[in-house]
Amino acid sequence: MTTLAVDCMGGDHGPRITLPACRQFLESHPDAHLLLVGRPEDLQSFRHPRAQLIPANEVVAMDDPVETALRRKKDSSMRVAIAQVKDGKAQAAVSAGNTGALMALARYLLKTEEGIERPAIAYPMPNARGTATTVLDLGANVDCTEQHLLQFAVLGSALVSALSHVESPTVGLLNIGEEEIKGSEVIKRAGELLRAAAANGDLNFRGNVEGNDIFKGTTDIVVCDGFVGNVALKTSEGLAAMIGGFLKEEFSRNLFTKLAALIALPVLAAFRHRVDHRRYNGAALMGLRGLVFKSHGSADDFAFRHALERAYDAARNNLLERVRARIAHAGPLLAAGAADVAAGALASQPASTPAAAPAEAA
Amino acid sequence: MTTLAVDCMGGDHGPRITLPACRQFLESHPDAHLLLVGRPEDLQSFRHPRAQLIPANEVVAMDDPVETALRRKKDSSMRVAIAQVKDGKAQAAVSAGNTGALMALARYLLKTEEGIERPAIAYPMPNARGTATTVLDLGANVDCTEQHLLQFAVLGSALVSALSHVESPTVGLLNIGEEEIKGSEVIKRAGELLRAAAANGDLNFRGNVEGNDIFKGTTDIVVCDGFVGNVALKTSEGLAAMIGGFLKEEFSRNLFTKLAALIALPVLAAFRHRVDHRRYNGAALMGLRGLVFKSHGSADDFAFRHALERAYDAARNNLLERVRARIAHAGPLLAAGAADVAAGALASQPASTPAAAPAEAA
Repeated sequence: MTTLAVDCMGGDHGPRITLPACRQFLESHPDAHLLLVGRPEDLQSFRHPRAQLIPANEVVAMDDPVETALRRKKDSSMRVAIAQVKDGKAQAAVSAGNTGALMALARYLLKTEEGIERPAIAYPMPNARGTATTVLDLGANVDCTEQHLLQFAVLGSALVSALSHVESPTVGLLNIGEEEIKGSEVIKRAGELLRAAAANGDLNFRGNVEGNDIFKGTTDIVVCDGFVGNVALKTSEGLAAMIGGFLKEEFSRNLFTKLAALIALPVLAAFRHRVDHRRYNGAALMGLRGLVFKSHGSADDFAFRHALERAYDAARNNLLERVRARIAHAGPLLAAGAADVAAGALASQPASTPAAAPAEAA
Repeated sequence: MTTLAVDCMGGDHGPRITLPACRQFLESHPDAHLLLVGRPEDLQSFRHPRAQLIPANEVVAMDDPVETALRRKKDSSMRVAIAQVKDGKAQAAVSAGNTGALMALARYLLKTEEGIERPAIAYPMPNARGTATTVLDLGANVDCTEQHLLQFAVLGSALVSALSHVESPTVGLLNIGEEEIKGSEVIKRAGELLRAAAANGDLNFRGNVEGNDIFKGTTDIVVCDGFVGNVALKTSEGLAAMIGGFLKEEFSRNLFTKLAALIALPVLAAFRHRVDHRRYNGAALMGLRGLVFKSHGSADDFAFRHALERAYDAARNNLLERVRARIAHAGPLLAAGAADVAAGALASQPASTPAAAPAEAA
């Protein structure tokens, strides 16, 4: 039995889309249970033998500051949903609410795993191979050190091995060129650390990748800081919207083009299915002592159900245990990094020291 | 009369595409002159009353290290083309060669303008408004300070005013949210500096923009560091290639879909024209004491001609004078920034000091 806690009030649409998604999800997973968290008056119409209503009387608004979510709305559906995971009543929580608030609440309630300084947001982006490239971080951390990037690589590897059943997923470091000498100082040191981790058997690191490799699907995982990841994601969303808009405009320009659209309808539908980002909905908040998944705020019921599916798959495939096993394996490198950062000593040392020393000791 | 120096040997294809592009360009611009730079044996077949052959016996290869271009190949077509600008024989140089080598040679031969510490690569990206969003920097500078970002904003404004005839183009700072509190420390300080420049009448700054705003066309110019800009550009290229590939695959799947493609041909052609990146070819190397334009290495003759057009427009619209006028206007802010950076004092001061002080003094 797998139980998910669902923040039914979050997102742009709230129960109007979360409840139908929950119903569809329950129908296709006979062993799943759902804890539906939210205002009783909004949820009580929903009845299902495997669904239980958990009352929460406040809602974190999409534009609420993090402080409001953390300190003032202590009975929010978002917070109560995460608390279900903390209390062991659910294996994962899913919310379409405000990303900043969700990350802050999840971090506050669940804490980070040993060896992980900062949680990261991991998101699957469709690629030309027909699979998904998992990119992290996508906005939780704007200034990252090389140790953070190593931690993201470890977390991303656990996620992909759980969800895509690839035991040793490939990792690329997002950079502005393939050569090791490219990029900022942090990126160059991250490259050394990742190579040391690969030599140690912690990661299947394939070196630097560039922005276009995300959609080529060159590696299963692409690691970057949250600023760069957020820009890459939003830029892609903007381009996809522009291209989709142009295509629609051209096909609805006049009677002839509308006729052409009618004839091409099955082709355009097949195309639309392939680029349908709703099928990839559900970002994982990684590095926490509990599973939390974030749906896009504007998700419809189809998209929200996909976020539920991802949380369900992650729980069933023991994502947390996989994260812990990988952290334990990479322990010496992660610990060396963290200690060096704490001592503020790293900047003055040769970049290879923290990576090389534990590898030799092991 | 406007004279361009063309590195005819650069790019993936060399004279095979540069020469036809030069011929088309000369035919459509009766007042233009071209200096065709390259190996005489490769270029001598080209004859035109307004074209002159300038011999250069070496070629910078696409994978040559910067050092090779700078120190060893002193008679390269790329270097000789830039030297024509330096010597006042041409108003702008155009090359499809290796970006790193072109930037290094241009910087070495032409030097940067007073007040500009680092040149930047500015590239027009198509947007949903049907115009172009000029993004800079796109890869020349991986670690940028807030002063560099201010310099990019000034340079980008001069470029857009010259090429798009918008006297006061709008500027956005690429960030991960619209609010002023978002982003890294450098980005937040850059925001303060840009707001001070706007208050001073130096820039038409509109605040933070996000990745999707590039393709929405929210502002005429988007400013970012070279790492982020390069990732945004390459990610877009990857996504466009994936979407184009999917569309092609779906329309060539079977007899029916091929028939649909035939009927939809005019619509698909109109669509393809709107997203045709070749029409946007020609990145400007900004901040140098001379005009240099970079064509995509894989450009065909249609695309290369567009790079020539952009260089020609920039020269005719006095881009260099516009840059100088804008630098003079923003002088106090740029100088304060540069001096503070030189003294290494900035990091320890409140972020508003360098921006506010000269504004008050002015």
